[in-house]
Amino acid sequence: MRISDIAEQMEAVKVLGPARFGRAARILGEMFSNDDYSNFISLAGPIIPGGLRTVITDLVDEKLIDGIVTTGANVTHDMLEALGHKHIVGSETLDDAKLRRRGLSRIYDLLVTQKSIENLEKAVYRMLNKIPESKRQNIATYELLWEFGKQLRDKRSLLCTAQKRSVPIFCPGVFDSMLGLNLWTYSQLNRLLINPFKDFSKLVDLTYATKKVGAIILGGGMPKHHVLIANSYRGGVDAAIQITLDRPEGGGASGAPLEEAISWGKIKTQKMLATVVGDATVIFPLLTLAALEEARS
Amino acid sequence: MRISDIAEQMEAVKVLGPARFGRAARILGEMFSNDDYSNFISLAGPIIPGGLRTVITDLVDEKLIDGIVTTGANVTHDMLEALGHKHIVGSETLDDAKLRRRGLSRIYDLLVTQKSIENLEKAVYRMLNKIPESKRQNIATYELLWEFGKQLRDKRSLLCTAQKRSVPIFCPGVFDSMLGLNLWTYSQLNRLLINPFKDFSKLVDLTYATKKVGAIILGGGMPKHHVLIANSYRGGVDAAIQITLDRPEGGGASGAPLEEAISWGKIKTQKMLATVVGDATVIFPLLTLAALEEARS
Amino acid sequence: MRISDIAEQMEAVKVLGPARFGRAARILGEMFSNDDYSNFISLAGPIIPGGLRTVITDLVDEKLIDGIVTTGANVTHDMLEALGHKHIVGSETLDDAKLRRRGLSRIYDLLVTQKSIENLEKAVYRMLNKIPESKRQNIATYELLWEFGKQLRDKRSLLCTAQKRSVPIFCPGVFDSMLGLNLWTYSQLNRLLINPFKDFSKLVDLTYATKKVGAIILGGGMPKHHVLIANSYRGGVDAAIQITLDRPEGGGASGAPLEEAISWGKIKTQKMLATVVGDATVIFPLLTLAALEEARS
Amino acid sequence: MRISDIAEQMEAVKVLGPARFGRAARILGEMFSNDDYSNFISLAGPIIPGGLRTVITDLVDEKLIDGIVTTGANVTHDMLEALGHKHIVGSETLDDAKLRRRGLSRIYDLLVTQKSIENLEKAVYRMLNKIPESKRQNIATYELLWEFGKQLRDKRSLLCTAQKRSVPIFCPGVFDSMLGLNLWTYSQLNRLLINPFKDFSKLVDLTYATKKVGAIILGGGMPKHHVLIANSYRGGVDAAIQITLDRPEGGGASGAPLEEAISWGKIKTQKMLATVVGDATVIFPLLTLAALEEARS
Repeated sequence: MRISDIAEQMEAVKVLGPARFGRAARILGEMFSNDDYSNFISLAGPIIPGGLRTVITDLVDEKLIDGIVTTGANVTHDMLEALGHKHIVGSETLDDAKLRRRGLSRIYDLLVTQKSIENLEKAVYRMLNKIPESKRQNIATYELLWEFGKQLRDKRSLLCTAQKRSVPIFCPGVFDSMLGLNLWTYSQLNRLLINPFKDFSKLVDLTYATKKVGAIILGGGMPKHHVLIANSYRGGVDAAIQITLDRPEGGGASGAPLEEAISWGKIKTQKMLATVVGDATVIFPLLTLAALEEARS
Repeated sequence: MRISDIAEQMEAVKVLGPARFGRAARILGEMFSNDDYSNFISLAGPIIPGGLRTVITDLVDEKLIDGIVTTGANVTHDMLEALGHKHIVGSETLDDAKLRRRGLSRIYDLLVTQKSIENLEKAVYRMLNKIPESKRQNIATYELLWEFGKQLRDKRSLLCTAQKRSVPIFCPGVFDSMLGLNLWTYSQLNRLLINPFKDFSKLVDLTYATKKVGAIILGGGMPKHHVLIANSYRGGVDAAIQITLDRPEGGGASGAPLEEAISWGKIKTQKMLATVVGDATVIFPLLTLAALEEARS
Repeated sequence: MRISDIAEQMEAVKVLGPARFGRAARILGEMFSNDDYSNFISLAGPIIPGGLRTVITDLVDEKLIDGIVTTGANVTHDMLEALGHKHIVGSETLDDAKLRRRGLSRIYDLLVTQKSIENLEKAVYRMLNKIPESKRQNIATYELLWEFGKQLRDKRSLLCTAQKRSVPIFCPGVFDSMLGLNLWTYSQLNRLLINPFKDFSKLVDLTYATKKVGAIILGGGMPKHHVLIANSYRGGVDAAIQITLDRPEGGGASGAPLEEAISWGKIKTQKMLATVVGDATVIFPLLTLAALEEARS
Repeated sequence: MRISDIAEQMEAVKVLGPARFGRAARILGEMFSNDDYSNFISLAGPIIPGGLRTVITDLVDEKLIDGIVTTGANVTHDMLEALGHKHIVGSETLDDAKLRRRGLSRIYDLLVTQKSIENLEKAVYRMLNKIPESKRQNIATYELLWEFGKQLRDKRSLLCTAQKRSVPIFCPGVFDSMLGLNLWTYSQLNRLLINPFKDFSKLVDLTYATKKVGAIILGGGMPKHHVLIANSYRGGVDAAIQITLDRPEGGGASGAPLEEAISWGKIKTQKMLATVVGDATVIFPLLTLAALEEARS
């Protein structure tokens, strides 16, 4: 039995979690197979270090994704891996003060060496130096990340593949990451100015240049909201799926049901929406496989 | 690509959610393919109405599950479906007072008719009447549910299949369900006594009669804890997976990590444990398919 | 500023969490001050070891609570403390296999000695021996717990205080606890039969014998559902508050909004309902203080 | 009984939720009473519309908070209220398409009129026009928000009070909000450039200019991480409390335990940390009252 068959059977349950999963697979299949769609994906939480680097890079490479909005952390991790660093398997019960002394930093059960972060800084400086100053003094994050993608040369890198395929990666919270710290320290001695207005203009332009917009929302945070708000000028996205463990009751945007965004004009209708309550790093590869099977059949 | 291939790739990530999902698939595959294992499954939350009736019935029919511990609600829903009633698709935003007036009861976005619940009562009385009084006056829940299974005649019913395969269904909280109300009202005018000691003796006996015990925990609640505590006499289960959205921080048994049960002697070692944070009705069919593919290869 | 003043200001926000907290305080104040109410409290999760032993015992002593439905674990912990055992402060990152070897069992960051559990067994046997066999062979859990309460002699014990005040403690899942294991082993060599029908009859009788029923729901699980379902014969409870971290989307009873119970006839109207998303061991003492201040003013 | 007395009793429980709440109250009391501390608060989720506007404004007015990092949404709501708009009480079950047609937008059970959002745009343009172009063409968000605070004239406004008290409000994700849309459209026809480097320099400078740093983290998201990462240059914050409903298992920064930040050098030691699992709009006012009582006693 193929996973798309299970997804279909799940949608046939029509209620509760299975219906939400099945519907999400079908909607994603439609986004991937219908050429009218430009698809934007938001990445929050440890999407890249959590094993989805290949999945998302492949989707970009196959031109199934047309724009990415991500936290700075996911960009940082893509660069770390492109520079040859691998995360280390740890545990969520390790002593953090000891880890610190041993030069290790922790993300739940995953460890990163301080050494790799120092190497990243050097690489970022080196790459920034190669960007002409005229460009550097008024640059969007998507332009900056394309420059890095050009220089990094790792076929499995999201930055490299996105650059190759001219898919912009927007990073509205870039300063809130290790990469962001490097940009800031560099800017203290060199000409560098990130212009977030240019990012937003580019993102809005993309939403206008397509018949339909599909939103694929992994986790919550600013990336989720940013994809949706950028579509409010065109009357909202046409289809959206989200995978999140965040709760709605607190009223934060991260856990908000997609339906809420209809009242803000960020989503058009209720017809093509699905929320899967779950961990995006578990659910998204499964949904993607089901959707690609459906799209190809 | 088969789902067992994805599960394998996920385990290779070695951290975060994907590792937990991949490991759970592998452990479940081991439980299903290694004849040393007797497997006990716990059902809490709307497992039967949430679309897993077929999945679990099939596993019982193939002798991959040797004992079931469930809430009364899941038994009630299996019986409702065996009696020909189907749930109705609703929505979580419906007005409950209006539903009440229209004879409908709600479980999130799923509706049940009051009519079907009345029919259940009649059927339960009819079936109880057919059980000899000598048996009825000191009966375990597993014996009672086998009696019902014998009388219900629905091939897709968990109760019928479990009876056919001599797999006991334990229902330690049977009184806390629509079925339980029927048992109680019946007992007011007829001889009926449920003896929970007999259930526990049977369950403990089963855990002794096998080389290895595997625990498959869907949701939390009393069913989860009951499977584990019954194994404390034999030194704990040998392998366990759990799928739950409950949190650990409050200290309740539902959200507790499996590791905690090691300190109580309910689980033997940390080697064969996996917790997937997610909705059991979404995750379990996927894990099962992956495990069966692995078990058969 | 008094906590009841803050609760009032919170209700004045009228939306989101503060409104839910403020409304819960007001409803609880009404339950405590209006003599028409009989109040039933459900205890799931580590309510007793989590510091609410005194709070709940005081409410029982002041006759503000008329019935208790609890997990076996909370009864077990009340008995452990009555027998002089204290929990030990641990941590959620301790190694459970090491704890096991050192004779310690863990509940999140709280430790219990195996020694105290062995002492509990002896005490339970001793207390059971003192109950006349004629009574023992057909006993409800509330009767059994009153017998224990009579023998335990600890003023701060919930069991003792409940017995003194003739407040029944119902334990529909008693077998699913350390105490339950002791009852079962005792029953293998001695006459002992727990009759859950008697418990349910008593509980239903209590719900009929009062003008209004208030339900105070701490955590989810069987205790939550049991309080509600027992009130379905009288047309539902008149007021209810619940404090839980469980989620609604999975469709389980633990995380279900109170409104859902209206469609089942377990709650009368939407007027006197409040759900606080939070940890009951944190929220309930604060709500209680606010409610008592309001009730007394 | 005062709330600080309850908090003290809770800390004496030493385990589970009560200990976390009690410890948080004590740590917050220390931050408020010890002059060595500069305190930074992060605001994610509907903190301002959720009723904490007065609480936080009062803390700023009393100079107990020295820096704020917030989402754009909270700034937007403070401005809406300063302009005389009030949110409307709705419900989480309303039909969002209907709301849209009626000119209403929804945040869980809270409604905002489209009219008020249009008025905000006009007010933002008007206020921007009054800022000298020389300043506007290279402005930090904290400078911009001080300019707005100067012009808004609402004593209860966080922006006004922060400006009056020279407390900077950093808004690293300002573009991801209604206010951000207004800034972007304005920039299409007028000179306006937000320079996020200036914000980060100011924030880092503040962390250096104090003996001790206290971090008060309400909700997760970029604001949480931003306060912590800005302190990594000085070796981490000295004390931190967080209140969140986000989960740790997914590995995202929002739900991460504070201890994890020690391994990144963003927090100094484990001694002065407390995480309360709960809704910040409920827990923070209670903690604040307890902390102020302690600080003043």
